[in-house]
Amino acid sequence: MENSWRIRMLVSYDGTGYAGWQIQVGGPSTIQQVIEEAASKLFDHPVRVVGSGRTDAGVHAVGQVCHFDVKKDPTRYNLTYALRRNLPPSIVPRRTWLAPHDFHAQRSAVDKTYQYRILNTPQPNPFDVRFASWYRQPLDADVLQLFADKIHGKHDFMSFQSQGEEDRTTVREIFECRWERKGKLVLCSVRGSGFLKQMVRNLVGTMIGLYLKGQSPQDFEDILKACDRRLALAPAPAEGLFLKSVRYPPHLDNKCRKL
Amino acid sequence: MENSWRIRMLVSYDGTGYAGWQIQVGGPSTIQQVIEEAASKLFDHPVRVVGSGRTDAGVHAVGQVCHFDVKKDPTRYNLTYALRRNLPPSIVPRRTWLAPHDFHAQRSAVDKTYQYRILNTPQPNPFDVRFASWYRQPLDADVLQLFADKIHGKHDFMSFQSQGEEDRTTVREIFECRWERKGKLVLCSVRGSGFLKQMVRNLVGTMIGLYLKGQSPQDFEDILKACDRRLALAPAPAEGLFLKSVRYPPHLDNKCRKL
Repeated sequence: MENSWRIRMLVSYDGTGYAGWQIQVGGPSTIQQVIEEAASKLFDHPVRVVGSGRTDAGVHAVGQVCHFDVKKDPTRYNLTYALRRNLPPSIVPRRTWLAPHDFHAQRSAVDKTYQYRILNTPQPNPFDVRFASWYRQPLDADVLQLFADKIHGKHDFMSFQSQGEEDRTTVREIFECRWERKGKLVLCSVRGSGFLKQMVRNLVGTMIGLYLKGQSPQDFEDILKACDRRLALAPAPAEGLFLKSVRYPPHLDNKCRKL
Repeated sequence: MENSWRIRMLVSYDGTGYAGWQIQVGGPSTIQQVIEEAASKLFDHPVRVVGSGRTDAGVHAVGQVCHFDVKKDPTRYNLTYALRRNLPPSIVPRRTWLAPHDFHAQRSAVDKTYQYRILNTPQPNPFDVRFASWYRQPLDADVLQLFADKIHGKHDFMSFQSQGEEDRTTVREIFECRWERKGKLVLCSVRGSGFLKQMVRNLVGTMIGLYLKGQSPQDFEDILKACDRRLALAPAPAEGLFLKSVRYPPHLDNKCRKL
């Protein structure tokens, strides 16, 4: 651990055009890869960046958290600013900390909050197209809330896991799932212990799909309980999804020093 | 005029990546060109589109107005929708009308309103970068208003005309120029009889530049009165500028029938 410093970083990004967070060997550009290149250039040695979790292709983050280790004293830099200068405008470091070596962006996370944004107007518009999905049919947030209430608590979310990545367990705990209308936008915020692949998009897509077909919250609960992914409806489009925040235990937060 | 119908169209667009409104022979893609291609395809004959005015490369429009003539009865189409389907998500027709033949999107216009959007926060963010320019230094809208008050009324705006296009007269009338803060945004709205090339960006850039250098509204008025474009400061970046609306005389509005 000597001559090694662990950095914690809070970062926002516009996921449009990126193949998601995680590096894909030989694949198109990812957020992790672009941040690794910027940090490697700044510290002049290869840097491996660990995120709190993967975001899918096209998904955005207001408050993604990642960590990485460096071999030069980071207090010599105006680090947040120096990293930002090495990154494109679509990826903006918001804050950096010197973190204890037992801080791990993924394994130390307590919960994560995602927000799904829907533009709910008779016509689309060119200014929201990157950061919201568009549904023309009027959505009633109060009715959608009755669906969301069904997933509160600990459940096996097998029905809402997309293929391509198998976690050891498909049980997750949802602490909060709230629908609300804000003017022309309808928002769905979900805070949970963790999320399976495309779980938020599958949940939102299924809730909206059932609602638009006039089905009931009970139908939604039946799909949840069946633990059968063939029953879930199409996932909501990636462009509406934002990773809002990731929380860590206070004893680790307290050991982080702002850079 | 027989077998010819004039269409009036209200259109929003994200100007990012376009070379402005006006077609440039052999040049990169422009808004006018993309709309002409969509309308030509829909009506199966070449269509020429006339806008209320040109917007620069990278400038957006919430409510640009244009007109074009077609040789097939447009009431046979769900026209707004049909055009939208032939256009990319960055260009969204909002409404179409059957217009009288003496309606001319440019020559009939009474006034135009532009809005300039500034993100005024300590850090930039990836979600506003396309639709606002970023100024880190705190801006006081009340102080900027003292500058704006100097351009109310009829003036020769020669000092704020960018090179490359010479209008017969550089006199324009400004009916309103208002600065306001809305949360993290600072907005400047300008309504005028018409605008010279890059006039709004030159005005906004000069007002902010003088403000940040601690100069006075009187200095701004001196630049206006000098009629010398070398005295204006750098134009504010294109990404912050929106053509908000264009107004026409009531007698023409009344002769337009919604399609």
